[in-house]
Amino acid sequence: MASPSYTSALIVGAGQGLSASLTRLLRQEGLAVAVAARDTAKLAPLCAETGAHAYGCDAQAEVEVQRLFAGLDRDRNAPDVVIYNASARTRGPIAELVPAEVQHALQVSAFGAFLVAQQAAARMLPKRHGAILFTGASASVKGYAQSAPFAMGKFALRGLAQSLARELAPQGIHVAHFVIDGGIRGPGHVDDPAKPNALLDPDAIALTYLNILRQPRSAWTWEIELRPWVERF
Amino acid sequence: MASPSYTSALIVGAGQGLSASLTRLLRQEGLAVAVAARDTAKLAPLCAETGAHAYGCDAQAEVEVQRLFAGLDRDRNAPDVVIYNASARTRGPIAELVPAEVQHALQVSAFGAFLVAQQAAARMLPKRHGAILFTGASASVKGYAQSAPFAMGKFALRGLAQSLARELAPQGIHVAHFVIDGGIRGPGHVDDPAKPNALLDPDAIALTYLNILRQPRSAWTWEIELRPWVERF
Amino acid sequence: MASPSYTSALIVGAGQGLSASLTRLLRQEGLAVAVAARDTAKLAPLCAETGAHAYGCDAQAEVEVQRLFAGLDRDRNAPDVVIYNASARTRGPIAELVPAEVQHALQVSAFGAFLVAQQAAARMLPKRHGAILFTGASASVKGYAQSAPFAMGKFALRGLAQSLARELAPQGIHVAHFVIDGGIRGPGHVDDPAKPNALLDPDAIALTYLNILRQPRSAWTWEIELRPWVERF
Amino acid sequence: MASPSYTSALIVGAGQGLSASLTRLLRQEGLAVAVAARDTAKLAPLCAETGAHAYGCDAQAEVEVQRLFAGLDRDRNAPDVVIYNASARTRGPIAELVPAEVQHALQVSAFGAFLVAQQAAARMLPKRHGAILFTGASASVKGYAQSAPFAMGKFALRGLAQSLARELAPQGIHVAHFVIDGGIRGPGHVDDPAKPNALLDPDAIALTYLNILRQPRSAWTWEIELRPWVERF
Repeated sequence: MASPSYTSALIVGAGQGLSASLTRLLRQEGLAVAVAARDTAKLAPLCAETGAHAYGCDAQAEVEVQRLFAGLDRDRNAPDVVIYNASARTRGPIAELVPAEVQHALQVSAFGAFLVAQQAAARMLPKRHGAILFTGASASVKGYAQSAPFAMGKFALRGLAQSLARELAPQGIHVAHFVIDGGIRGPGHVDDPAKPNALLDPDAIALTYLNILRQPRSAWTWEIELRPWVERF
Repeated sequence: MASPSYTSALIVGAGQGLSASLTRLLRQEGLAVAVAARDTAKLAPLCAETGAHAYGCDAQAEVEVQRLFAGLDRDRNAPDVVIYNASARTRGPIAELVPAEVQHALQVSAFGAFLVAQQAAARMLPKRHGAILFTGASASVKGYAQSAPFAMGKFALRGLAQSLARELAPQGIHVAHFVIDGGIRGPGHVDDPAKPNALLDPDAIALTYLNILRQPRSAWTWEIELRPWVERF
Repeated sequence: MASPSYTSALIVGAGQGLSASLTRLLRQEGLAVAVAARDTAKLAPLCAETGAHAYGCDAQAEVEVQRLFAGLDRDRNAPDVVIYNASARTRGPIAELVPAEVQHALQVSAFGAFLVAQQAAARMLPKRHGAILFTGASASVKGYAQSAPFAMGKFALRGLAQSLARELAPQGIHVAHFVIDGGIRGPGHVDDPAKPNALLDPDAIALTYLNILRQPRSAWTWEIELRPWVERF
Repeated sequence: MASPSYTSALIVGAGQGLSASLTRLLRQEGLAVAVAARDTAKLAPLCAETGAHAYGCDAQAEVEVQRLFAGLDRDRNAPDVVIYNASARTRGPIAELVPAEVQHALQVSAFGAFLVAQQAAARMLPKRHGAILFTGASASVKGYAQSAPFAMGKFALRGLAQSLARELAPQGIHVAHFVIDGGIRGPGHVDDPAKPNALLDPDAIALTYLNILRQPRSAWTWEIELRPWVERF
């Protein structure tokens, strides 16, 4: 029973919360980590702290995603772990939504994930080795009222992940989808003592991502949901 | 126990199969029917046969959808039944898919449905009356290998439908999603006598759409799946 | 496109609500109807009204179910439509539940359905004709807190229905499962004028059962959910 | 972010495969382990190897489950981890199934799980600490043809687990359900070199059970599925 051994991760849609926790944990485990976001300035403190490398990339733009992976290739840093965290949303009554914002939400939450997964898979397939992880939300499995755009993007992401799991797992690539069902605590958050741990701790989420990455291929998970102990579902 | 009474239907993405069966059945039930597609020439025979009116519309283009509904308004034909049948797909191994085609599939299968539903809802909400039906597929609930774009579009459509059902049902608008789980027989199809009715008859599908439309609001369905008796699932 | 033609129905677990509505509607459609319950006295008014025949049967007892079907055979009344409505429940915190009551709930809600379906299928299979309908609840797809026994029974019933749909549909027997997601209005119920039709009307439910029975075999549904327009889901 | 700390496990329905792997792994992690099965003789080698204690128990019999937990109490061994692995099945065309065997399958797969969970919860609730894990199968989420009894039992088990997760998680007890989607390799199994790791390695499954047990309560999973990389789903 051998756990897969990964050496280099790319996290797309990197922000302060989950992406930062993942960066720290994967660095701790000895992986090289690249973080990609539109605004790389925001990533500077994390990179300084962890030694991760920042790449600028608008994940919904085909040429930028190509350039991102070409850059990783050039840096001899082709990732065998790719995590897609980017998403966008807009909400409100259906009649009041702005179509361009809805389209943008779909592009960032789903089409960008396709672009990134395609570049990742093209590099992993020849080696029959790699993992592609997608970060979903409650909206991945439940379409809430007045939140159609987020549901559209996250449902689409889940369809992508499930299709890729079916296509790529038999070729040695672990594809997994995480349903993050609850709010993630921000950096400054202080717990209500009467109801501790009511928000998802991003370090706790990252731990489960790592454990999924470590699964031997005889017992792979394609989907797992995570929620705080006190969260209603 | 009163069944809702509808007077005017719009079918978007009208082709020869299901849309034609729906047009015939709804006309038979006394509804005015408008059919919208990019290529209205193809709709001429159906319109001649049934008295339906054809409108040209590329459903994924915001201005065209606005123009479609403005045209229906002008023709005093604002629909209280709107059915979205349009979809697009491209398939193949993830590494070989053409991004522009994937984006197009997502636009037609999901974003166009949003655009149409938005215009429809804006007209139905003041009357607290109407029905919006979405045509899904096996790919709405199962992401097949080498078919990520269709899964993305159809999953997204289902997320839209579920969100709208939650938002609009309490406002008197029936939103329903149909999972068409199997192939639909084409016009020239002759059944294999050893395995009759192995494809979905579009007239049979249309019958269930009609029965869902007729449901009294005390017992509404938001999702129903349909498949041939011999189809594996 | 031919709708199946049924002549004789058996409704098990007959009470005042849905079973009475189904009895009336199926009688109206010209079917002979047998209603089976432990306490046949309660069925007398319905039988007097509709001409249905009552049979005494504890559905969870193997010998009683055998006797029921033997009686129907003897009366030349073997049903080609069988509807299983019986269920039992007990609720409370897990630590306070009475095991014998939990077992009873499982027996009535699920094991009895198996017994009835088995006798029904044995008679339908040689004719490759028939329909078996199961009445589920919100608890069929969601296990609520403090209601484990009902979830166990209704989940099990759904597993039975899905397995039978896969086995029997290709043999010409339509198996369908109805998720009744909301409260059913009782005989004396008066609607809140501020929120009309907030409970499921059993006549409206029965109408959908009938429409599912009428589906041509090229487009069969195995599962459909029903809820009032204002019900949260 | 603190992982829960457990000290004593009970595994019910202990056999050679998954239960043995769990026993070894939990012992390795420093937990006391009790294994319960009808036939304790079979457990002797495992107990000798690992220092686990064997208890005789027919999990579907209320008095035996009470006696099991009373014995654990007496041995000052009340478990804070309880894993339910027992199941029974019978298969075949619906018309040929033996009702007593169907009932037995339901009793062992689902009712026994309730009995064990009830005793476990009663001891965990005052401490607001503990974990109850249920082992499901493909049949937990898909009712296969000619396998209704197993679907009934495993669907019911899933309903129990989901209800208990909703009831017990906010009281500090982690309830999780594992969908084991594929065959588990037996002790003597030799892999096909052309298709290695095509069966679930019980050690690999056990690893994921352990990682779920270690989840901090801010990010708990209630359900996870596991399958070999090459398994179709």
